[in-house]
Amino acid sequence: MMELSLIGIGTGNPDHLTLQAIRAMNDADVILLPRKGEAKSDLLDLRRGICDAVLTRPVRVVEFDLPTRDAQGDYLGAVNAWHDAIADVWREQIALHLPEGGRLALLVWGDPSLYDSTLRITERLQRGGLEIDLRVVPGITSIQALTAAHRIPLNRLARPVTIMTGRLLRDHGWPENADTMVVMLDPACAFEELADQDIRIWWGAYLGMPNEALVSGPLAEAGPVIAQLKPRLRRENGWVMDVYLLRRGPA
Amino acid sequence: MMELSLIGIGTGNPDHLTLQAIRAMNDADVILLPRKGEAKSDLLDLRRGICDAVLTRPVRVVEFDLPTRDAQGDYLGAVNAWHDAIADVWREQIALHLPEGGRLALLVWGDPSLYDSTLRITERLQRGGLEIDLRVVPGITSIQALTAAHRIPLNRLARPVTIMTGRLLRDHGWPENADTMVVMLDPACAFEELADQDIRIWWGAYLGMPNEALVSGPLAEAGPVIAQLKPRLRRENGWVMDVYLLRRGPA
Repeated sequence: MMELSLIGIGTGNPDHLTLQAIRAMNDADVILLPRKGEAKSDLLDLRRGICDAVLTRPVRVVEFDLPTRDAQGDYLGAVNAWHDAIADVWREQIALHLPEGGRLALLVWGDPSLYDSTLRITERLQRGGLEIDLRVVPGITSIQALTAAHRIPLNRLARPVTIMTGRLLRDHGWPENADTMVVMLDPACAFEELADQDIRIWWGAYLGMPNEALVSGPLAEAGPVIAQLKPRLRRENGWVMDVYLLRRGPA
Repeated sequence: MMELSLIGIGTGNPDHLTLQAIRAMNDADVILLPRKGEAKSDLLDLRRGICDAVLTRPVRVVEFDLPTRDAQGDYLGAVNAWHDAIADVWREQIALHLPEGGRLALLVWGDPSLYDSTLRITERLQRGGLEIDLRVVPGITSIQALTAAHRIPLNRLARPVTIMTGRLLRDHGWPENADTMVVMLDPACAFEELADQDIRIWWGAYLGMPNEALVSGPLAEAGPVIAQLKPRLRRENGWVMDVYLLRRGPA
């Protein structure tokens, strides 16, 4: 029997860790850390640093190479194939490091529930016949890190909030009746399509990290600033992970 | 000059506290804890317990009576009047305990950004002329506590999520194009209106607390179970705080 803990670790600030996350890490036999290539090696360093900082028991910390996603062709097909490939690598790692079962932990950026694939990959292992006693430890998401950094509420008083991806915003535009939207996973700048509307943006990258970048203001003014800044940050850091909140209408 | 920290403390599990929250609590001169009346006294006990558990410096922990909201008449008007009244009480407490300024901290259930009034009340103090150096410490929301307890993703792959209140769901129904909805602040059971549709529900109350209650399943079956359970839990505990996720269409 395999115990698997998916542990949300927040957005890069080691102080985002909850006491529950620290306990779960120390309860593990093995923690698996994904290597995502040279450009994102500081993300691996950060996870290593978190392990060094909070582990007080002799937990084995094992690194493995994460497969890369095919950037060509059908998006959903490519994502599903990628998740299959990651599930295969997890299986190999489990066979290698926990052949008799035991307690495995994975550190998940943000929270395991939000635009993250670990739960979907776990399901593949379960469908494949692996018995898993699954535990999810919630973590601070980039949405809360964004609103905290800008010191703003997520919702207007008694109003709804929609969370979506850059791809959805680009393909479907602003959803009817929404007045607040949070956009994640937008490698381009899908907000540019909305620049002519009465919208404010609160944007953040590397939230909680020493190189945190924040921009906010009317979309017509702040949008072009972000669109210029983002490629520069990507060049300087090798990667950029950002999130933004859009609010329509009067302040 | 006043430093004010709004500190998200998660949903009732003291282990939801982040290292950042613990640090911010210890950096305060005064922590204000709201008394919400007899029925909710265990919520106050919980905050007291959190202070006892994590404070390692001589921080003054001060309790004050939170005004109650007028349940009659126009909802938004009543909420705004209530926030005004709370702002007045904060002002009194600040004048009493930090007349020369200093570092004040407030512990916020969940996260300060999500369906919470502390940021709006802070704004009232600022508009009233109080200079505030504001800091927001993100916390685990009930949404993440819900998805972690049920071990489910919040979003379908590459799909959006809408967060709303029970009042909005009752008044406006299911938003067009939404396939996942999270409903908060629903003292009644607004989901009952949707029972004839192909929807699954994942519901939780007292999330993260010892008396955590979870129900999930097709809405037609699980809905009536929740509708029966809720009044009983309210009677037994004096209050009930719950949240649920609804997903439409195939699993």
